Amino acid sequence: MALRWISGGVTAAPGFSAGGIRAGIKSSRKPDLALVVSDEPATAAAVFTTNRVQAAPVGISKARIRRGSTRAVLINSGCANCLTGAAGTRDALTISRAAAEALQVVERDILVASTGLIGTRLPVAKVICAIPRLVAQVNRAHHTAAARAILTTDQRTKEAAVTAMINGRAVRVGGMAKGAGMLAPSMATMLCVITTDAAIAPGFLRAILRESTSETFNRISVDGDMSTNDTVFALANARSGVTIRRGAPGAGTFTRMVKAVTGRLATLMVKDGEGASRVMGIQVVGARTSREAQRCARQVAQSPLVKTMLAGGDPNVGRIAGAVGASLVHVHPGKLDIWIGSRQMVSRGVARPVPASVSRTLLMHPATTVRIDLHAGTATGRMLTCDLTEAYVRLNAQYTT
Amino acid sequence: MALRWISGGVTAAPGFSAGGIRAGIKSSRKPDLALVVSDEPATAAAVFTTNRVQAAPVGISKARIRRGSTRAVLINSGCANCLTGAAGTRDALTISRAAAEALQVVERDILVASTGLIGTRLPVAKVICAIPRLVAQVNRAHHTAAARAILTTDQRTKEAAVTAMINGRAVRVGGMAKGAGMLAPSMATMLCVITTDAAIAPGFLRAILRESTSETFNRISVDGDMSTNDTVFALANARSGVTIRRGAPGAGTFTRMVKAVTGRLATLMVKDGEGASRVMGIQVVGARTSREAQRCARQVAQSPLVKTMLAGGDPNVGRIAGAVGASLVHVHPGKLDIWIGSRQMVSRGVARPVPASVSRTLLMHPATTVRIDLHAGTATGRMLTCDLTEAYVRLNAQYTT
Repeated sequence: MALRWISGGVTAAPGFSAGGIRAGIKSSRKPDLALVVSDEPATAAAVFTTNRVQAAPVGISKARIRRGSTRAVLINSGCANCLTGAAGTRDALTISRAAAEALQVVERDILVASTGLIGTRLPVAKVICAIPRLVAQVNRAHHTAAARAILTTDQRTKEAAVTAMINGRAVRVGGMAKGAGMLAPSMATMLCVITTDAAIAPGFLRAILRESTSETFNRISVDGDMSTNDTVFALANARSGVTIRRGAPGAGTFTRMVKAVTGRLATLMVKDGEGASRVMGIQVVGARTSREAQRCARQVAQSPLVKTMLAGGDPNVGRIAGAVGASLVHVHPGKLDIWIGSRQMVSRGVARPVPASVSRTLLMHPATTVRIDLHAGTATGRMLTCDLTEAYVRLNAQYTT
Repeated sequence: MALRWISGGVTAAPGFSAGGIRAGIKSSRKPDLALVVSDEPATAAAVFTTNRVQAAPVGISKARIRRGSTRAVLINSGCANCLTGAAGTRDALTISRAAAEALQVVERDILVASTGLIGTRLPVAKVICAIPRLVAQVNRAHHTAAARAILTTDQRTKEAAVTAMINGRAVRVGGMAKGAGMLAPSMATMLCVITTDAAIAPGFLRAILRESTSETFNRISVDGDMSTNDTVFALANARSGVTIRRGAPGAGTFTRMVKAVTGRLATLMVKDGEGASRVMGIQVVGARTSREAQRCARQVAQSPLVKTMLAGGDPNVGRIAGAVGASLVHVHPGKLDIWIGSRQMVSRGVARPVPASVSRTLLMHPATTVRIDLHAGTATGRMLTCDLTEAYVRLNAQYTT
């Protein structure tokens, strides 16, 4: 079935409402507290960071998600609540209890996530005072306010939503995300909330979310770091009356919908990467295994030399070939082919001369694709990355404790 | 035995001479062709890049080093002779034949290495014309000319030499190296030539060289990339009359000498990293295994967020903890300790408040040490890294094809 992009972000599906306000966590006085609420108990699933150092809210949400059901997601920006020990866990429990009281639901029905500075405590009193105001503001129309309140160094809000007919009825999938610096495969500091009005069992929702995450959020790289707070939530409220079952008609369409929304959000993240001026897709073909294809694409996507080359706009195919070789995948150096856009730059392991007039134009686009054929098998992989600019360094050298 | 630093670089040991001239490979008209010559056949050993894409001279030197003996090392900068296919191999063979003729030695007695742009052909005619001039200039006094002619984006020459008494006689170990951008563990674009007047079997020399490389050159990181051309050569001419045998007296001192020279050269490389203004040592203790300790140290050393933090001079211990966790080593988050210099920043997994007046001073040194205790075992690891500055991006965005 055809998917259609719609507006509405995280509240595109009926039965969900959202809001975002200034609680005073950020000294910049920007919005820093968001809430997504489901009118009725929603099936819930999540994917969390694999970092061995995890923030307090990650531990709490991990425990609560096991029930497979939730009512609301409370997210703050400006403070990661990480490296805060038992006190940080108490802080997160305190604010989730305040949200539960204001929403008149049980405490375990609240999922939590945080993003921002590591190593500082949450200003719990400020958050508790802000929660009634936030709950009062929550509304289906306020999806962008929520999307704004979860941002840190992001320049722009990130929202996406699609609809499709499944078994004769309209189903919607929408979402919002944040992430700018520290964006990496394996999820880095990114938060995402996906909502849908489909009916689906938590186990199947989790499987689809994992697959979508691995094909979208885990295939983007801004700076290769992986955060302590990454969380992707999915909530399904069954409002459409359409049930999605493994292997049954509609499951494929629904999976494509989730991938479309996470894919769009992932692309928005790379475009909004700290200091980024251009994005580059990396396609690896002819790899011996999918794992090798992905490893190769990732090595190229994360190479500072490739990323600064993209910033400078001057193609240096040796840097790409060097990164391919550094990934230690199977490749016959005498067969390696590399294209930038439609121009073949390396043929059978030999760099082709390219006139400077052509060369200068190859990377001068908002988006470019590099294609690498390893000629070692049939597996493929891909990544999306952005350039490494002086602005990235300036932003991150000045991001104060 | 005590080691003593001496001058003389790659010709500190008697019986070696060197030279470096402009052959016209670089358009900048800087020196670009170097030669190190041993008066008599020298025992030879080498360590090469593990990149799957390797430059033409790497293949040639790999084959020739198997004999365990050599007379000279010919190195050019300005052209990596990589992605040049069979023609590139022919080019490297042609210039090595010219060097052999000028030196009146057999062709296989010449080792070769290249560094510079990938994907361009060597200007063979220019190199051949320059070789007689280079051979005429070769001299024990010209070690710095050789060290200068192997540089690419390096700002400074890198030379080191030590002497020590072994079995009552003076033994010398000296060397030169290049490397600035693309410097990484696993050796990146670095070239190094070590010489000594000890007598030693090629197998044992190679073992010492491998151990030294893994403890020095493989523990530095500028930008995490690994090059197609990395090569470390060691030549031993026996001139001192001192024989080094595995397990015999003097072997330990000799190994320490090689490590001292490679260690000094590695430190010079990090200090001269592209755009670098500060260096940071990373010590990991309490790891479950040495492998995990090293992986953790490397993840911290290569994190762009840690490296930009160092550039900005504002300690953000969350970035260090995030990189520790991202390395996926065993660590109990509730036990993690982190120090910057002598200041404990994280204690039992909790960030300690540090007054801004103190915090601002912690990284404001030419060299800082970060110490990380994982409390998961007794293994240790270390790395040396430099900051990621706007100058690095500027240099690499503008380094033209």
